[in-house]
Amino acid sequence: MSPLLEELAAIVGPAHVLTAPELVAGQVTDWTGYWTGHTTAVVRPADTAQVAAVLAACHRAGQPVVPQGGNTGLVGGSIPLEGELVLSTLRLNRIEQVDPLGRTLAAGAGVTVAAAQQAAAEHGLLLGTDLASRDSATLGGIVATNAGGVAMVKYGSTRSRVLGVEAALADGRVLTRWIPLVKDNIGYDLPGLLTGSEGTLAVITRVLLRLVVPARHTATVLAGVDSVVTALALRDAVNRAGLTLEAAELLTAAGLDLVCTRQGLRHPFSEPTPYAVLMEVSGPAEVAEILAEALTSVDGLADAALEEGHSARLWHYRESHTETIAASSSTPAVKLDVAVPLGHQEEFLGRLGPLLGERFPTARPICFGHFADGNIHVNVLDVSADERDAVSDAVFTLVRRYGGSISAEHGIGRAKNRWIGLGRSPADRAAMAAIRTALDPAGLLNPAVLRFDTDR
Amino acid sequence: MSPLLEELAAIVGPAHVLTAPELVAGQVTDWTGYWTGHTTAVVRPADTAQVAAVLAACHRAGQPVVPQGGNTGLVGGSIPLEGELVLSTLRLNRIEQVDPLGRTLAAGAGVTVAAAQQAAAEHGLLLGTDLASRDSATLGGIVATNAGGVAMVKYGSTRSRVLGVEAALADGRVLTRWIPLVKDNIGYDLPGLLTGSEGTLAVITRVLLRLVVPARHTATVLAGVDSVVTALALRDAVNRAGLTLEAAELLTAAGLDLVCTRQGLRHPFSEPTPYAVLMEVSGPAEVAEILAEALTSVDGLADAALEEGHSARLWHYRESHTETIAASSSTPAVKLDVAVPLGHQEEFLGRLGPLLGERFPTARPICFGHFADGNIHVNVLDVSADERDAVSDAVFTLVRRYGGSISAEHGIGRAKNRWIGLGRSPADRAAMAAIRTALDPAGLLNPAVLRFDTDR
Repeated sequence: MSPLLEELAAIVGPAHVLTAPELVAGQVTDWTGYWTGHTTAVVRPADTAQVAAVLAACHRAGQPVVPQGGNTGLVGGSIPLEGELVLSTLRLNRIEQVDPLGRTLAAGAGVTVAAAQQAAAEHGLLLGTDLASRDSATLGGIVATNAGGVAMVKYGSTRSRVLGVEAALADGRVLTRWIPLVKDNIGYDLPGLLTGSEGTLAVITRVLLRLVVPARHTATVLAGVDSVVTALALRDAVNRAGLTLEAAELLTAAGLDLVCTRQGLRHPFSEPTPYAVLMEVSGPAEVAEILAEALTSVDGLADAALEEGHSARLWHYRESHTETIAASSSTPAVKLDVAVPLGHQEEFLGRLGPLLGERFPTARPICFGHFADGNIHVNVLDVSADERDAVSDAVFTLVRRYGGSISAEHGIGRAKNRWIGLGRSPADRAAMAAIRTALDPAGLLNPAVLRFDTDR
Repeated sequence: MSPLLEELAAIVGPAHVLTAPELVAGQVTDWTGYWTGHTTAVVRPADTAQVAAVLAACHRAGQPVVPQGGNTGLVGGSIPLEGELVLSTLRLNRIEQVDPLGRTLAAGAGVTVAAAQQAAAEHGLLLGTDLASRDSATLGGIVATNAGGVAMVKYGSTRSRVLGVEAALADGRVLTRWIPLVKDNIGYDLPGLLTGSEGTLAVITRVLLRLVVPARHTATVLAGVDSVVTALALRDAVNRAGLTLEAAELLTAAGLDLVCTRQGLRHPFSEPTPYAVLMEVSGPAEVAEILAEALTSVDGLADAALEEGHSARLWHYRESHTETIAASSSTPAVKLDVAVPLGHQEEFLGRLGPLLGERFPTARPICFGHFADGNIHVNVLDVSADERDAVSDAVFTLVRRYGGSISAEHGIGRAKNRWIGLGRSPADRAAMAAIRTALDPAGLLNPAVLRFDTDR
């Protein structure tokens, strides 16, 4: 054992410095199996003081560190691809407090999203962020990546709900911003800066989150629409009726057909339409009737299936997309999480197929997403290994042509490093690099992630 | 004219470098008359390129600069107290676009809040931030200060609605983050970092803001309550009924009595209560009936006056507080904008009077505020000039005892510099100072504002 690992073992206890390959296997590969790295050790501190001591020791030794929560990221941001030490936050798993008056949750960074949701639910409140990986994803992870999800259209970004953080800087100093109030206007928004910084500025050890109030009455509608413009008109009609959007998902004919075929589902509409909209809407007890009435005011709407409450049956058409896509592609699907300004989504979706078809004859795009946020999950099936980067490049370039973002909610990680110049200008990248250097002068925190240099 | 002023005149035109005392008088004193400074010139660039060129010239000359919008701040943050040059953004007054599909507004930093509200209203949308100084306050100013206001309980902070900014750094480089999407997860949230930075990191020249959808149907209630806990129970009852809070204001018996006496208003309740709550609530067309029903479920509620829609009559009891307080104090009232965790507001308000009374026999505190955000505006009347700092100190110390914030929405500016140590830890201040140095190494932007050193 190296002197550094001996020092770390003295801090966290020998049982929490894992070095055997079989013990670290789960921490050096991501869940998709696409990203695999290697490490000399996975270190598992138990509290903020231990995290700080571990970082201070690594800082003295010049040892790069990758912070890791539930390891459920989609862009390779938590994998030690260059042999970094892994600092696991999973033992920071204490829910400290739910304050029902202030509607806040204080918890360790290693608490899972599901555990936090459960703790909030016991007080009739919601975490506000939900995602499929909820049983593994951690609060530290969703804050460090500013995770999105279906509920963002109602509750905003994860960042907008971060009231405070405790975090250890690269040299082991501890930053504590811990005022449980949305109104705390004293200098720079460091919690917001750390949110989405992908482990490059500090290791988040505790989080103080604002909770939200769940809707009382909801209704779900799945409607065929002739265009994205009609989908947006439907959004407007819902707002005009005094109702609230809980979720607003766009499906395409190609995706819906594939799901129906693969899952053996009845096609929901009597006539095919180029798009379908799945919306969940909340309001007073009569929400379903009000929604039905609002639907009649929208031109371009084909069949619409409407059910009271959260309809698992209607949601299934949307939720089975991921699994269906994985099972339908001859190669691992290229999965790109982008966003396009709402007024350009129609054009983007219309251009995407022909554009890819010209250059990649076997490629089949299946898109779906959170259309009221502009977020589109572009999945490209049947792409050969040597075409993957070129496909990504083509999609990202098209996104930029319409003024969109090459990362809507998944972050940059390792996967999108080379395209960061498509999303941020040189002056912007230089400012971000200066901030990173200010907080981590030695460049030890997740050094290969979110790189601001680019050859573009 | 100095060589620097000649250079600046060449950039913006001689007519826009103001040096005569009578021309700069309005820019060197704040609207309260409390803060007065002096300057060699007020420079008024017309666009981002001119702002950048002005800053580059000042940078070469080592000339400190105070950015100034509508000069409506409450903490002396836009006044050249140490003879800085004033960079006025008032000519950056173009509304570039309102996108009703994407629900965004793009505009110059010098556009007034009122003009932006009007532009949004033409598309049936709202800016989301509203404040009494709307005719003078600018978009650049509300972003630079992360301005709050009554609507924050529904629409969140100004920061949460900033999608993009264009800003000139201290050396004249221009940072452009301009993707009109809430989902744009590429690196650090620089727009959020500049929001609330009080002109110390960059001069914001253009803003890209998310607009919000106004409520269709509202009702207003003014209710006497026996405690803050009852006020919060009222908030919960409104949420349980599926209604949305548009505003939630707390008044005290002392404030309400003073307002009724001074304004010649009928006292709204048949029996006195220690507190009153003014709430505006939205929902379906039947919102008033649903609210009336919800009120019956809350214990501790005395008389309640309920009106449909936005009731100017009921709001008058709240809105005339500021004017009444100004007219009722024998000295300029000490006005402190603080926030206290919701569960401690009762105790804080109960302790405040006796605490001040012990040390400052003539002092009369009148509090009101946005109680669902924890925000309390503490006004202390009849304080002598030499007691002002000690009164502030006592209030801030009490705020911290309950874990609150010494600046809820007004910022630090010059006024609260000496208390910043009560709001931010040494490690936090060091991190903020490092970021400031990273973006403005020469320390030329608003150097005397938001100082992270403190003698506490």
